Amino acid sequence: MNVVRLISSTDTRALNRLLTRDEGMDPTLERRVAAIVADVRRSGDRALVAYARKFDKLEGAIEIAREDIEAGARLAPVAVRRAIRVAARNIARVAKAQVPRGGRVVVATGVTVEQRVQALASVGCYVPGGRYPLPSSLLMTAIPARVAGVAEIVACCPRPEPAVLAAALEAGVTRLFRMGGAHAIAALAYGTASVPRVDKIVGPGNAYVATAKALVARDCAIDFYAGPSEIVIVSTQGDPDWIAADLLAQAEHDIDARAILLTSSKRLAT
Amino acid sequence: MNVVRLISSTDTRALNRLLTRDEGMDPTLERRVAAIVADVRRSGDRALVAYARKFDKLEGAIEIAREDIEAGARLAPVAVRRAIRVAARNIARVAKAQVPRGGRVVVATGVTVEQRVQALASVGCYVPGGRYPLPSSLLMTAIPARVAGVAEIVACCPRPEPAVLAAALEAGVTRLFRMGGAHAIAALAYGTASVPRVDKIVGPGNAYVATAKALVARDCAIDFYAGPSEIVIVSTQGDPDWIAADLLAQAEHDIDARAILLTSSKRLAT
Repeated sequence: MNVVRLISSTDTRALNRLLTRDEGMDPTLERRVAAIVADVRRSGDRALVAYARKFDKLEGAIEIAREDIEAGARLAPVAVRRAIRVAARNIARVAKAQVPRGGRVVVATGVTVEQRVQALASVGCYVPGGRYPLPSSLLMTAIPARVAGVAEIVACCPRPEPAVLAAALEAGVTRLFRMGGAHAIAALAYGTASVPRVDKIVGPGNAYVATAKALVARDCAIDFYAGPSEIVIVSTQGDPDWIAADLLAQAEHDIDARAILLTSSKRLAT
Repeated sequence: MNVVRLISSTDTRALNRLLTRDEGMDPTLERRVAAIVADVRRSGDRALVAYARKFDKLEGAIEIAREDIEAGARLAPVAVRRAIRVAARNIARVAKAQVPRGGRVVVATGVTVEQRVQALASVGCYVPGGRYPLPSSLLMTAIPARVAGVAEIVACCPRPEPAVLAAALEAGVTRLFRMGGAHAIAALAYGTASVPRVDKIVGPGNAYVATAKALVARDCAIDFYAGPSEIVIVSTQGDPDWIAADLLAQAEHDIDARAILLTSSKRLAT
């Protein structure tokens, strides 16, 4: 559980502890992740399934059949499914406005430069399965891909809850796999007999996932290398509930996340 | 020197040799590059200047003063300087049309999502100094940055020829450094006392540069990890001179580059 603390601006020791971050990677973690990635790249499904059984408590098939996605999604409360539908529609609306258009420029007589924007053939959406289900991660990665025209939208999640299954249906995911961590990233980057190799991997994850994405980035595009979430809100006023919601939305990502409110108002801080 | 060869479609052994690429990285090269990057990150200018002296035959200061850029540029033939000016104007025209615009979307009553597009504060343009001067690399990286509104445009080149200096003036480069290779990438990614740390590193380079870019990518954005250039032209007709020019424009990048024409016309191939 994350800890909520009031720190006075004069308590520089506590402030420094809060703001200090390790530079660079943990070499032990990196070696471990590199071994997993190499193993899945070399041995495919055999290694992938072994890691998924060990780390994700996989039982049964690694791919979730369409009818199982549909049956699982029906277990999500009606209000949750409705919220997912509304969120999906809103995300699609924003994504549509963001699709780059390309165009033509006449550079000189007889010379025209045209930029054509084409969707990738496939993407892999990583959905963490950690402490809290994150259907929002699925929606925010898969829907822009669908709107852009990506044909194959592969998603993976180590332990997909009903809300995540409902989000997969709503987002138009074409294939869904029960896997997470570094082995899932390696499977998406290099492909196995069961998992198709994708053009780009997107979505948030823990230190294993982030490190694996950095390691495969030369062979498969990634969105970016993301450290733990950080948010700083500077305010002396505003609705404390809204501010708390914004802080918690980042804090819930990871036990290493940092959510900070800077304020001169003791009332607001409390 | 690159070798031009006619290969018949029935000579599968020669075809396979042409098309086969090593998978992944050379581990010896990667270790060597990682050591250079770590050294420059740790020791700054001291390591950077030592490597630049050793690999780039640096004499004197690592930064080239504005008046030296201007004096050097005047040594480029008038026709070359004129061609650079025309190219710069054309590249700026295309770059202007490509600047993303952002916008607002009303998602629901009272909820508007706005996307604002802001230029990076600084970029580093890598210009190879290898067998042939590549003023085009400088123009194609620095001009889009200038058009986008990037304030600090740092360029580096191990041995900048007069044409590269003329391109730097034309493109609006703000600082120019006499350095190349993995140590230059490390200096741009982490900064030293002499070289400012940049937000993003762009531009082509040899295996050392590509590997260094991949290694710093978690700490500093890069354009992408580029292997040796490849071009395949499929044609049975067209002007042989134009086709040859397109092939040579890629082949000149590197001795590992591959430039291939597939044709059923023996006349064209010859």
